[in-house]
Amino acid sequence: MKKIAILMGSDSDFPVVEKALTTLDKFGVPFEVHVYSAHRTPEEARAFAVNARENGFGAIIAAAGKAAHLAGAMAANTTLPVIGIPIKSSTLDGLDALLSTVQMPGGMPVATVAIDGAENAALLAIQILAVTDEELAEKLRFARLENAKNVLEKDRMLAEKYNK
Amino acid sequence: MKKIAILMGSDSDFPVVEKALTTLDKFGVPFEVHVYSAHRTPEEARAFAVNARENGFGAIIAAAGKAAHLAGAMAANTTLPVIGIPIKSSTLDGLDALLSTVQMPGGMPVATVAIDGAENAALLAIQILAVTDEELAEKLRFARLENAKNVLEKDRMLAEKYNK
Amino acid sequence: MKKIAILMGSDSDFPVVEKALTTLDKFGVPFEVHVYSAHRTPEEARAFAVNARENGFGAIIAAAGKAAHLAGAMAANTTLPVIGIPIKSSTLDGLDALLSTVQMPGGMPVATVAIDGAENAALLAIQILAVTDEELAEKLRFARLENAKNVLEKDRMLAEKYNK
Amino acid sequence: MKKIAILMGSDSDFPVVEKALTTLDKFGVPFEVHVYSAHRTPEEARAFAVNARENGFGAIIAAAGKAAHLAGAMAANTTLPVIGIPIKSSTLDGLDALLSTVQMPGGMPVATVAIDGAENAALLAIQILAVTDEELAEKLRFARLENAKNVLEKDRMLAEKYNK
Amino acid sequence: MKKIAILMGSDSDFPVVEKALTTLDKFGVPFEVHVYSAHRTPEEARAFAVNARENGFGAIIAAAGKAAHLAGAMAANTTLPVIGIPIKSSTLDGLDALLSTVQMPGGMPVATVAIDGAENAALLAIQILAVTDEELAEKLRFARLENAKNVLEKDRMLAEKYNK
Amino acid sequence: MKKIAILMGSDSDFPVVEKALTTLDKFGVPFEVHVYSAHRTPEEARAFAVNARENGFGAIIAAAGKAAHLAGAMAANTTLPVIGIPIKSSTLDGLDALLSTVQMPGGMPVATVAIDGAENAALLAIQILAVTDEELAEKLRFARLENAKNVLEKDRMLAEKYNK
Amino acid sequence: MKKIAILMGSDSDFPVVEKALTTLDKFGVPFEVHVYSAHRTPEEARAFAVNARENGFGAIIAAAGKAAHLAGAMAANTTLPVIGIPIKSSTLDGLDALLSTVQMPGGMPVATVAIDGAENAALLAIQILAVTDEELAEKLRFARLENAKNVLEKDRMLAEKYNK
Amino acid sequence: MKKIAILMGSDSDFPVVEKALTTLDKFGVPFEVHVYSAHRTPEEARAFAVNARENGFGAIIAAAGKAAHLAGAMAANTTLPVIGIPIKSSTLDGLDALLSTVQMPGGMPVATVAIDGAENAALLAIQILAVTDEELAEKLRFARLENAKNVLEKDRMLAEKYNK
Repeated sequence: MKKIAILMGSDSDFPVVEKALTTLDKFGVPFEVHVYSAHRTPEEARAFAVNARENGFGAIIAAAGKAAHLAGAMAANTTLPVIGIPIKSSTLDGLDALLSTVQMPGGMPVATVAIDGAENAALLAIQILAVTDEELAEKLRFARLENAKNVLEKDRMLAEKYNK
Repeated sequence: MKKIAILMGSDSDFPVVEKALTTLDKFGVPFEVHVYSAHRTPEEARAFAVNARENGFGAIIAAAGKAAHLAGAMAANTTLPVIGIPIKSSTLDGLDALLSTVQMPGGMPVATVAIDGAENAALLAIQILAVTDEELAEKLRFARLENAKNVLEKDRMLAEKYNK
Repeated sequence: MKKIAILMGSDSDFPVVEKALTTLDKFGVPFEVHVYSAHRTPEEARAFAVNARENGFGAIIAAAGKAAHLAGAMAANTTLPVIGIPIKSSTLDGLDALLSTVQMPGGMPVATVAIDGAENAALLAIQILAVTDEELAEKLRFARLENAKNVLEKDRMLAEKYNK
Repeated sequence: MKKIAILMGSDSDFPVVEKALTTLDKFGVPFEVHVYSAHRTPEEARAFAVNARENGFGAIIAAAGKAAHLAGAMAANTTLPVIGIPIKSSTLDGLDALLSTVQMPGGMPVATVAIDGAENAALLAIQILAVTDEELAEKLRFARLENAKNVLEKDRMLAEKYNK
Repeated sequence: MKKIAILMGSDSDFPVVEKALTTLDKFGVPFEVHVYSAHRTPEEARAFAVNARENGFGAIIAAAGKAAHLAGAMAANTTLPVIGIPIKSSTLDGLDALLSTVQMPGGMPVATVAIDGAENAALLAIQILAVTDEELAEKLRFARLENAKNVLEKDRMLAEKYNK
Repeated sequence: MKKIAILMGSDSDFPVVEKALTTLDKFGVPFEVHVYSAHRTPEEARAFAVNARENGFGAIIAAAGKAAHLAGAMAANTTLPVIGIPIKSSTLDGLDALLSTVQMPGGMPVATVAIDGAENAALLAIQILAVTDEELAEKLRFARLENAKNVLEKDRMLAEKYNK
Repeated sequence: MKKIAILMGSDSDFPVVEKALTTLDKFGVPFEVHVYSAHRTPEEARAFAVNARENGFGAIIAAAGKAAHLAGAMAANTTLPVIGIPIKSSTLDGLDALLSTVQMPGGMPVATVAIDGAENAALLAIQILAVTDEELAEKLRFARLENAKNVLEKDRMLAEKYNK
Repeated sequence: MKKIAILMGSDSDFPVVEKALTTLDKFGVPFEVHVYSAHRTPEEARAFAVNARENGFGAIIAAAGKAAHLAGAMAANTTLPVIGIPIKSSTLDGLDALLSTVQMPGGMPVATVAIDGAENAALLAIQILAVTDEELAEKLRFARLENAKNVLEKDRMLAEKYNK
């Protein structure tokens, strides 16, 4: 199976990004995690993107805050799907990272998920692999059913308590 | 090759969405286009999503404006990757559609591109298919080179005119 | 008397939504509460909306955060009035939920109240029932008088302390 | 049948508000239209609200732009449901009117629809009357079917032209 | 000397508004404080505004949060200068109150100060009285000098510590 | 009678500001108009403010766009009431000018009116003079009545045409 | 004298950026203009930045719209001062480009000017060179005087026409 | 070597601004720090700017919150490069200070860094001095290498722990 790359612009993003790791783990999808900054280590970031496909990656998740360029810098150097996670930082509630990630110019898409949406970034990566991997698709379907069951269990508990 | 679905919430979105069709066409990627509204034709929208994988689709592009729920409604009913295009309408400059599309809750990713970013939505869909399709990946690389050549040609013209 | 439905997209919304329950209780209006997610349990959500009128409901209150589609998903499947409560979550201060709830396309209104405005959602539902229920209208008038009396009591205390 | 009141803060709002009139007309719902300003004619606005219920109204639609207080001023003086239409004016793209209309304090709900959402305001008013008027509910269901048919007809045309 | 009225929409605004009282006190300007809500006590609010001039007031300060209509409701019922303080509440960081207060329609000005700017509201009221009261103007000039002296004292301390 | 100063940061603001001149004229209030920029002519701007009171001015209206500092620069150099008009320019719809004008620090109030609100700026200046000028107050009351009459005339025309 | 580099992400930015060229020309400051995209020609962009200092440049101006990464990509590859011009494009009024340009992470400053502020970008570059170039500093002082004279001439004309 | 001035509008900004001092210190760049307010001490602020060049300064850093005019007031009175730090205060998350600082009118640039971006302000000042100071440029290059090394060390630790 192809691997998923999880990059973050700073190790201070790790507490948010960690959910991507655990989600990929839960689905048995192999991954590699790196701290590369589009601005502080542009060479390493670029080299990673350029070689990602031949190194066996199927998609790249990139998380960054503020003027978040990491996902775009990846996208500029690979034709693999790049998934951007805008990270909320100390000001502007993540709006800066969201716009810096999603408003990419024509020719260079970044598949952007919600602010701090690390779980969804991982799920999107899995969905991408599952386009041609029926077993993984089956796992996604199963996770959906579990998810729905959890909601309905919450519903049952609330309904029992409040609906006469 | 798997097909790409292009859905829009209203036929008034077509002038923006059309760029997705022409982009897919240019890459020789088969697609199917539909007008389905998450609110006005919820049943048809849902049925399309539920059956998309077995109907041979590899990804779903969904374009909608205002309180843009179409991409999310697709995502809720398929485990295929869903790509959301927020459409700018007469007020708020597309911010409403952007937030309605990208801020999805945990468990249900929508791969969001820029406001009115139809070309990038198509390119992202192609990238997704190209994860396991080397020929398509090659076409993407070639398009990148063309794209770069165009920029550098513009650079040459401007430099010639203004740099002494 | 017709019942009011109170739906929330996640049980984590309950601390905010609870005020809707207590408000309906105070007015003696029957209600039913459910956790249904537009994305995680689309079928149950849809089924609830489709059958709400014949199950004796007079209005549906739907609370959700982020890309809040629950109220819109209700509205798409019933002709009962649907009242949307945008829930503030960890980023963007509720603006995402507000725009996702209020900016509905033509043909599908959602009666949106303030961010986290659970009390007002309940009062609006009661006002809707009170259009044809003079006794309930009387209770609303009485509550307004109480409300005004409370304000004026606060005024009296402040005036006494600070106005010489 | 109870009447619907349609108020606007300025006659310059009429081109947007007109859609509410035509929508009510289409459903055979009687209405009365007025230009009352919360600021320039506070007495007339207040008197209208105070007497609306006994004058046979079932709901009040109030449209205003900028620091839009008209809907709130109505809500403060009646226990009928008040529906607010935020009107976009020359600056801020309607955000000012939206926040001024929807962010009402506890105790005084305004059922807010989208910016410039006059059609939805009328439909919401009709839904409110239809809670206890099965014939009107039937008309709403029929309009929904027509609406869906239109979307599907647009879908058919687009599909015919572009789907091979 | 004319009095200044200080109104607030809710007694929960008092901790912010209190600075207006202490500022007026410091300048020896008489004031009267009230809790009146544009929505919950519209009659009392209106009556206060209508009679304010003949009751000896020279300006009205009105503080309110969310869809803040209090200052506008005052302005609609008096020709005295009305000063609006937008109050930050639990969502949107005061932007809703700011726009609801400042974006008044033509004909009805509200002199708006910064979000939670109670001290400045009081100073503005004093400036208004000081247009024709030279003694008060002198006090304002003196306070400015004190204010500047404080800044320069801070400057001296910092400069001493850090400038070699 | 004291004069009103009308300053603008650029003569390109004149088409918006002109309404302030015509409004003051209508009320017979003397004024003086100047183009002074807080940034391009800081000395002239400052000198004007410093001498405004002794030159017979009762209030200063300052209009500026973008990072609008003119009103604040006036406020820093006079204890007269300063009224700020945020001017909408080619980007951000006037939000930059609004925040630059209204969010003044403690000690330095600027009485801010709506974006492009030149008429209201003039009316506020007149209200300030009218605090101690009963004749002017009478004119303001009369203008209000005219204003209300105009609204009610519009109401009559609309009602005649649409209310059966 | 060191040269100024003027880069833009797309030749469609040229109509805005042109003002930077004419401003540098007016001051006799040599410059070189290029179209390089952070995303479409990352290698050329990077190479330019890496070699800029030894190629005789004293500062780099970078203009880009949407998720504007060009200035940041320059900053990551040179220790020369980088000046960013956020370009307004078809949605969001330039806010996306502003935040993508200004909100740079610690260690990598971009000197950001106003949205579409090409003239100021050039002036800032000139000011940087003028730190150690007294002749250039003199030209800047002279331009300021001219600028002030223009404002005062506008003032004179307006004052003549409107001040009695 | 020329000195860098660090001004702040209030000593309450010091905890944020302090990072600029320590950064300049680390690079051995001399500086002078002052508390000057554009509004409360306009004369001292102006005098400082007017004399800055001849007093041996090479650039001015100005930090202020809310309607942040300090950087603009500096820029209006010197032709030295002025670097603005928008300071986040209790409301609006620094957006007010950002727009007040960056949206300067033509002719008066302020080199704006990120909200609370004191370290970057200092680095930008150093970059400006380093245009003609090769030794300082060398220090900047070295700091970049250190910075990159830190990121890669973080990368190594994370990779070791999570990449199998």
